[in-house]
Amino acid sequence: LIKNPRERDFVAFLRAAPHRLPSFLKLGLGDDAAIFKPTPGFESLLSCDLLIENVHFDLKCSSPWELGAKAVAASLSDIAAMGGIPRLYLVSLGIPKHPALSPQFFDALYSGMRAWSESFGAYLAGGDSTATRGPLVIDIFILGEIEKGRALLRSGARPGDLVYCSGHPGDAAAGLACLRQKKILKTSNAVQRGAASLVVKRHLLPVPRCIAGRFLSTRRAASACIDISDGLASELHHLATESKVAIDIEAEAIPLSASAWLVAKALRKDPLEWALSGGEDYELLVTVAPSKQRLLEREFSRMTGSNLTLIGRVKPGRAVRIRRKAAWKLLPDNGYEHEIF
Amino acid sequence: LIKNPRERDFVAFLRAAPHRLPSFLKLGLGDDAAIFKPTPGFESLLSCDLLIENVHFDLKCSSPWELGAKAVAASLSDIAAMGGIPRLYLVSLGIPKHPALSPQFFDALYSGMRAWSESFGAYLAGGDSTATRGPLVIDIFILGEIEKGRALLRSGARPGDLVYCSGHPGDAAAGLACLRQKKILKTSNAVQRGAASLVVKRHLLPVPRCIAGRFLSTRRAASACIDISDGLASELHHLATESKVAIDIEAEAIPLSASAWLVAKALRKDPLEWALSGGEDYELLVTVAPSKQRLLEREFSRMTGSNLTLIGRVKPGRAVRIRRKAAWKLLPDNGYEHEIF
Repeated sequence: LIKNPRERDFVAFLRAAPHRLPSFLKLGLGDDAAIFKPTPGFESLLSCDLLIENVHFDLKCSSPWELGAKAVAASLSDIAAMGGIPRLYLVSLGIPKHPALSPQFFDALYSGMRAWSESFGAYLAGGDSTATRGPLVIDIFILGEIEKGRALLRSGARPGDLVYCSGHPGDAAAGLACLRQKKILKTSNAVQRGAASLVVKRHLLPVPRCIAGRFLSTRRAASACIDISDGLASELHHLATESKVAIDIEAEAIPLSASAWLVAKALRKDPLEWALSGGEDYELLVTVAPSKQRLLEREFSRMTGSNLTLIGRVKPGRAVRIRRKAAWKLLPDNGYEHEIF
Repeated sequence: LIKNPRERDFVAFLRAAPHRLPSFLKLGLGDDAAIFKPTPGFESLLSCDLLIENVHFDLKCSSPWELGAKAVAASLSDIAAMGGIPRLYLVSLGIPKHPALSPQFFDALYSGMRAWSESFGAYLAGGDSTATRGPLVIDIFILGEIEKGRALLRSGARPGDLVYCSGHPGDAAAGLACLRQKKILKTSNAVQRGAASLVVKRHLLPVPRCIAGRFLSTRRAASACIDISDGLASELHHLATESKVAIDIEAEAIPLSASAWLVAKALRKDPLEWALSGGEDYELLVTVAPSKQRLLEREFSRMTGSNLTLIGRVKPGRAVRIRRKAAWKLLPDNGYEHEIF
């Protein structure tokens, strides 16, 4: 266990934990830098995700293990959206003095990170830690790899392409709503209770779509891709802006889950709002040339275990529009901004 | 200028600033991840440095430009200590609501980062930003490269090797002491005032020893290397532990600068304490096989512009000892721990 949140104690703890170095990680924790052996013919993908207590997570709602898993999931999702293979990550921690942040807490936090990341092939390679008077800070830097020239960019969508999304956007926001109105988690209605507990799990333990990303890049199936971290609306605008295109979406086509529907009905919320403006679904939003439609619809689900739903089309222009009950409206760019709670 | 600290405003601002992408950076800001082209025959070096307001910096003491420069210097120094070439970095910012954190502030912060990093060949490739109720958070992830198998590790020191350090350890701590007792910066004694202003600059704007690190790795001159970020004592212990050796140091040989001496005398402090237990010098501590001594002493200063001083020897065993006034003592492992101020 980590005796106190000084860097040397962290390093000693993390090196003592049973672990193996994968062949691409020549040197892990404990020197001035980690050493990574790039795969010949591949490019490196680099991204970071900063999570701050009471902005991105609430220690009263998630266990340290879940927090660790979710923190790496956000980073893994960035590599998935590029079509890459996650390889390694570094973790910076800013640690306030607080009795809840015990040795057991960090033990569980790193267990969650390792379990979730290693199941996608990514290994802890280093980090930094420091004391702070502010909230707990977790910043994860991830490195992935992709075959030269195969990365899925936000800028590749072309008029005529089809727009798909994976999974069930809105589930994570539904889960957050349940955590804020906890009554629903204890209702005597077993179906509602089951739906609530499922979306809460989707909020606390998102599964990054790494396998789906690899399918899209290796089969050259996508013209553009982005992960849905701030809601569909915001990501559609990113795609439209970067690709210099317009996008038309069918509201009825957005694949809300049955659980999100049920929870929304119980809480008197609009589940479509959760899908459009909720955060942290970590699904993929993908554009696909018409010539690839058959490949995708025949093989995607079978090969990746995720479902993929056609929700719209790329058009010439720049607007993002949504059709709801036969009326077209401009979709505002109101991506999810984390409230400070 | 950055309108407000939302991620999309940062990205728009940073992409609008005049900049060019170096050939190894295939895709910079604005997608899910940056794309880096590794150099064939090289390995990647990865490190991160987390800086938190009122722990690592005080906005009353450093300008935003200096803060940006110093933040990247800490990361560049990690790559220097491995003997590598800095290539690119990502910046995570946690931003509190505070009138001082204006658009002008971030403009200057990024200018400082870019100026300092680009002069060593490293480019901004991405990042993340978020609001926080806590202190300002700056986390920098750096990627460097080194020829396969040539990285300078902490674990390579062997009994019989000579121990050198670059520059003048203790200067940065002397500068911090001056910033805390500002009288000395306004003394009528011009020599004292000059010395104080010089060490303050060493504290606020450290120069990472990238050129020195490259000399050591390309000439195969060092058996082990570490950067002095937490004081000589702590880094000597790291080297001894990782290399499984003992180290003997001569206190009189430690190259304190004349400025640190003068400032210490005026403030009635022990400058040797600053060198041993002060932080943020970002000099290099190096062990060298006797066969390389001549190469080093003849060429290091001429080739790198830094000076290098013999301060001790590697021995069999595990202890770190220091000789002061003819008496040997065990050197405690009291590295600099940032106080929260």
